[in-house]
Amino acid sequence: MSAEASDPGKLGWMVGAPPPPDKIIRFSDPDYFSFPKLRWTACHFRQLMPTVGVSRGIGAPMPLERKLDPTIDAVTFIPLGSDKPMSWEESLAANYTDGIVVLHNGVVVYERYSGCLNDTGQHGAMSVTKSLTGLLGEMLVAEGTLDANAKVATIVPELAKSAFGDATARQVLDMTTGLRYSEDYADPDADVWIYSAAGNPLPKPADYSGPRTYFEYLQTVRKEGEHGSAFGYKTINTDALGWIIARVTGKSVADLLSERIWSKMGAEQDGYYTVDSIGTPFAGGGLNAGLRDMARIGLLLLDDGVINGQRLVPEAAIADIRAGGDKAAFAKAGYSLLKGWSYRGMWWISNNEHGAFMARGVHGQAIYIDPAAHMVIARFASNPVAGNAANDPTSLPAYEALARHLMK
Amino acid sequence: MSAEASDPGKLGWMVGAPPPPDKIIRFSDPDYFSFPKLRWTACHFRQLMPTVGVSRGIGAPMPLERKLDPTIDAVTFIPLGSDKPMSWEESLAANYTDGIVVLHNGVVVYERYSGCLNDTGQHGAMSVTKSLTGLLGEMLVAEGTLDANAKVATIVPELAKSAFGDATARQVLDMTTGLRYSEDYADPDADVWIYSAAGNPLPKPADYSGPRTYFEYLQTVRKEGEHGSAFGYKTINTDALGWIIARVTGKSVADLLSERIWSKMGAEQDGYYTVDSIGTPFAGGGLNAGLRDMARIGLLLLDDGVINGQRLVPEAAIADIRAGGDKAAFAKAGYSLLKGWSYRGMWWISNNEHGAFMARGVHGQAIYIDPAAHMVIARFASNPVAGNAANDPTSLPAYEALARHLMK
Repeated sequence: MSAEASDPGKLGWMVGAPPPPDKIIRFSDPDYFSFPKLRWTACHFRQLMPTVGVSRGIGAPMPLERKLDPTIDAVTFIPLGSDKPMSWEESLAANYTDGIVVLHNGVVVYERYSGCLNDTGQHGAMSVTKSLTGLLGEMLVAEGTLDANAKVATIVPELAKSAFGDATARQVLDMTTGLRYSEDYADPDADVWIYSAAGNPLPKPADYSGPRTYFEYLQTVRKEGEHGSAFGYKTINTDALGWIIARVTGKSVADLLSERIWSKMGAEQDGYYTVDSIGTPFAGGGLNAGLRDMARIGLLLLDDGVINGQRLVPEAAIADIRAGGDKAAFAKAGYSLLKGWSYRGMWWISNNEHGAFMARGVHGQAIYIDPAAHMVIARFASNPVAGNAANDPTSLPAYEALARHLMK
Repeated sequence: MSAEASDPGKLGWMVGAPPPPDKIIRFSDPDYFSFPKLRWTACHFRQLMPTVGVSRGIGAPMPLERKLDPTIDAVTFIPLGSDKPMSWEESLAANYTDGIVVLHNGVVVYERYSGCLNDTGQHGAMSVTKSLTGLLGEMLVAEGTLDANAKVATIVPELAKSAFGDATARQVLDMTTGLRYSEDYADPDADVWIYSAAGNPLPKPADYSGPRTYFEYLQTVRKEGEHGSAFGYKTINTDALGWIIARVTGKSVADLLSERIWSKMGAEQDGYYTVDSIGTPFAGGGLNAGLRDMARIGLLLLDDGVINGQRLVPEAAIADIRAGGDKAAFAKAGYSLLKGWSYRGMWWISNNEHGAFMARGVHGQAIYIDPAAHMVIARFASNPVAGNAANDPTSLPAYEALARHLMK
């Protein structure tokens, strides 16, 4: 079903008082997060489950200057694995974009909304959340609050017997831990489902005997292989990092993100995190926010930790991320569309000639930062396919083409 | 337990990663909304259950001018039923105030936070919510979108066979419907508990056979007595009004409140509503908001529907509320502390010489508007006792004394 045909407004999800029975989406529906319901759910997580806020404070937002470039829609590029050019405008429907904003030199040059999203709405950032958690972690490392070389067991003793115990904070930050954990969403027996059950905030069934919170689950993770040798993209690293952050700061990632960044970057909307049954924010994927606020995060990183005239993140933290991670370790993970990339502080580093780097989330969420082009792209989407291999062919070359266009 | 002894920070609710087991508050706890947990819960409903937002939009808030009056704390009054004077400052702890702000001529002259609340936090407005729903209803009546004399059955046919069917919209707005419905929270068999179960957004137990949404419940309400003769404070009137509003506007009360008021009054925070399992906002009690935004609502009513230089509500709607309802009908309800009051459009009208009127919610939530003194008071609280008979003795005379103080 195309983006147009699966538009949640057109399908009438949750419209009416009450909606027709076959148009109701509930958290208990096994397919609430599957296409095409996904196209509604992506903007309405708070309506399905408990959340905690990321306060922007109560002052005035930092306005983003606006000078739209009407020629962007016609920019063309060759999708990965294709030989037929596609226009920027065509790419948005091709990859089910719900919203995209492009900043050039800090000025909004392009902005579009579709599907469930508008400029005052909020959308699940999915694993883009990880990069925010990683940013907080790198910030604490740069400030000396978190020792990147310390073993996790010395920071969170409850994790001593788990696989995380003898990993360093740096290995967690870079996801080079050796963990027995399958995140294959297509496999019903994958560990990720046990993890999801643990993080589910609803009361557990009477016969449930598994872990009941993110923290309880993390303690059960067993080691597989060695730490430090290969990149393995596993969400539970980010939740372990969330726990580390909470332990060294005394604040949840939601509260710390608000205090250090969201309330100071001129955000125009509060964000929010989904939580487990004891209110722990889902550090690995629970952030929801407005699109332009995601772009502000991109600006903060583009400008080396400064935004709105204030330094919010030590320059060293951003420099560390942008320098990238271990390319050999990354290559072992075998991402065929991301040759030469690396992973550092929970950011994806292209190592291309523009020094571009990204936050990436399933179904097409992205913050793309191109320092050479002074360009930031924030994108929310609801692609039917979770893995970004479905989005990358029509997005990565589009971003590169747009960067070249803006540099002209 | 005193306000100081029951301070949620002091009691350590939900502090720590994870909190100690005996400090965890869950929605499934039978006492999550009982004192002393109530003192934490009042600021954290979204963390316990699904919600929908009331967007303020993305522009700059309307700043509230500030000129604090340091003499207010020493203002004294005689609590109802007492002969011993109490100071304004003493009253705040006596009735478990979580936050209170006083505007005089539109300027903040007093502001305090305590317990779970601060100036960037949000608090359950409880039945103050009703007055917002009523305001929307009166607005639609004044604009001609809703015929106050129409029978509910002609607006929401699904309610034709219920008690609401042959009531007029006006009778619903003024709660003079004759309904078989007990809202005695102390009685475990009271109808309010069936209603709560219907509105509970969590999946229902396998053996549950009752109504599953607010709308389903409303259709089951049976008539008792006649419509139009006596005031009977019953939350379900407000949810019926919420349904009426949704039907005539095509928008939920949350969306309509955002569109018509919240996004235009210069609010500094988004609000939110708790919802049932199909996303219906709890029009009778589900609003949560920042304290100063509640004060902005008060200003809007004080200034006859104008705020931030814009008319948001027809003057006739506010005039109708302020003129009050049927005093004889109100007297039949027997509120011994509210002699001479009346109820109109889901607002409580004192009919005193200042023309003061209020929004009131259990556990001490209030917006108090005194036109003669050009004074607005917004208050959030977590009094151990739900009924406002516990709050009124130390708040109503305090508000009157403060009005006299400010008029000097």
